[in-house]
Amino acid sequence: MYRSEPVTIDCLQYCNWSSSIYDQMAAGSVDAVHVTICYHENFVDTVKNIEDWNRRFQRYPERLMLGRTAEDILSAKAKGKTAIFFGFQNCTPIEDDIHRIEIFHQLGVRIMQLSYNNQSLLATGCYEQDDGGITRMGRQVIQEMNRVGLLIDMSHSAERSTLEAIEHSTRPISITHANPFSWHPTLRNKSDTVLRALAESGGMLGLSLYPHHLKNGSNCLVEEFCQMVAITADNFGVDHIGIGSDLCQDQPDHVVDWMRNGRWTRDKDFGEDPSSYAGFPDDLTWFKDNRDFGSLRKGLNAVGFDAAEINQIMGGNWLEFFRQSFGPRPSS
Amino acid sequence: MYRSEPVTIDCLQYCNWSSSIYDQMAAGSVDAVHVTICYHENFVDTVKNIEDWNRRFQRYPERLMLGRTAEDILSAKAKGKTAIFFGFQNCTPIEDDIHRIEIFHQLGVRIMQLSYNNQSLLATGCYEQDDGGITRMGRQVIQEMNRVGLLIDMSHSAERSTLEAIEHSTRPISITHANPFSWHPTLRNKSDTVLRALAESGGMLGLSLYPHHLKNGSNCLVEEFCQMVAITADNFGVDHIGIGSDLCQDQPDHVVDWMRNGRWTRDKDFGEDPSSYAGFPDDLTWFKDNRDFGSLRKGLNAVGFDAAEINQIMGGNWLEFFRQSFGPRPSS
Repeated sequence: MYRSEPVTIDCLQYCNWSSSIYDQMAAGSVDAVHVTICYHENFVDTVKNIEDWNRRFQRYPERLMLGRTAEDILSAKAKGKTAIFFGFQNCTPIEDDIHRIEIFHQLGVRIMQLSYNNQSLLATGCYEQDDGGITRMGRQVIQEMNRVGLLIDMSHSAERSTLEAIEHSTRPISITHANPFSWHPTLRNKSDTVLRALAESGGMLGLSLYPHHLKNGSNCLVEEFCQMVAITADNFGVDHIGIGSDLCQDQPDHVVDWMRNGRWTRDKDFGEDPSSYAGFPDDLTWFKDNRDFGSLRKGLNAVGFDAAEINQIMGGNWLEFFRQSFGPRPSS
Repeated sequence: MYRSEPVTIDCLQYCNWSSSIYDQMAAGSVDAVHVTICYHENFVDTVKNIEDWNRRFQRYPERLMLGRTAEDILSAKAKGKTAIFFGFQNCTPIEDDIHRIEIFHQLGVRIMQLSYNNQSLLATGCYEQDDGGITRMGRQVIQEMNRVGLLIDMSHSAERSTLEAIEHSTRPISITHANPFSWHPTLRNKSDTVLRALAESGGMLGLSLYPHHLKNGSNCLVEEFCQMVAITADNFGVDHIGIGSDLCQDQPDHVVDWMRNGRWTRDKDFGEDPSSYAGFPDDLTWFKDNRDFGSLRKGLNAVGFDAAEINQIMGGNWLEFFRQSFGPRPSS
């Protein structure tokens, strides 16, 4: 399965970006990161977020480059840079305009979630009481995402919508950051039914290091996490898993408030934080920043993965998957 | 029930507005019209549509005035004008921002549909295959619409969402333009279950003259329509019905294409037109413009309504309902 030199790819981060984080990416030899460029931002605000990234690429050319293709990751690695892949956690930026799928692809966006916690115009989110499945517009948008090569991500979507996205999409889809519900039962984690359908259709799961997705939360041990990775590989295949850390480094607490509440409610929503605490959970002791991927590699080794499998999980699988996913399908 | 002097109110029109239409409103003694100011327009485009109306009010002060309260209708009548009430056929203009409910109320908007044919952020539309009911944001928005006094309209919404809107709303809601499904079975018409729940909660139904909502379509006779009004009054109470003609006078066919397709699909959607004809249906012979409400009054008389009941149906019920619906609830 794994056909390239070892790469490290993190398929989700939303940090308070700074030069020290880019230095940590270099120190950790992180070759590519899927970065969130919007939660609830509309079209214009998302374009502004892309402008911010364009300025970062100009300001830190020795550290960062825009990733548009899988090959860009190898190019970044060769130059000691990190390739940054743009992703949306919600479909808000396209508003009600299907033609913006192509516009955003032209602007470098490669991954889009069809919904974020709540109902969207396309699909239901994982915190809704009921899930009506992929909507009329959703079916059209999936077709368009398949056409231009914008990868579908169902990390924050509800069960039925996720199964229907897998069914309607003619290309494999992703869940970039979530864990199995059977390991830690929380609305954001995914059922075995979903994970099986995802793997069988050729899709990819990015395993998450966000404390609310982990057994024992912020106290989860690296051994426990890696044991979960081993079980997930046994159940769904080592070819279908990678890392999507959901690292939210250096973010002030008002950011998680924005993620949860956006502009959709006048009340406060606390997501799944059992304490109704309106802030980020505490960091893991063994995964705090981009220098800590080495501890994961060691942990995976300790639970019995061999070097080739570790390379797959730490980036090789995402690399192959990105090869198939970004851009129009090669004509057969 | 009916406590004011006779008024004529049409609770939905979307015409290609012109001075000849305003003259016809005056000739037909139409005292108030709920006009659609958006289908798929976003916030900024809807503000522009309000600007267009503000210019019309300035240009035709002898004919038109903005309606903000029920009393404005009596004031318009006294001056020989027509009071124009702004309404949205979809919630697109608020985008994902609940705070815009109050902003639009301040700008004069008085009625908003929670969805238009498709799934919205708030509710499911009548052309979706499945209906997950009112969403998390939808419940918050209903509460906010109740607070500021923006009337909920479920004309283009699906069954379960409509029943849940009635249930969640602490103020009566409306279906401004639709007919009973039992009379003409089409996805846009409403089940007896919905109409009963609507009436029992104090809500209002505006009976529609749009050919696709009528038995025999464009060939429906005034006698047939008025017979349907009589049956609806028998079943759900004469206090709960009015007219919402859905008059789309002088509109070019690209407008119905916009209504149906907006920007949500790259294919063409033909709504419920059985012929897959991408245009407006033919006009009724007996209802072509605002001068034709007299023929409706005659037709209602012919099927046995008395003068007081005809006055209720032709405007009195809407007048009373608007008194309760627009603006904050009077403190008890």
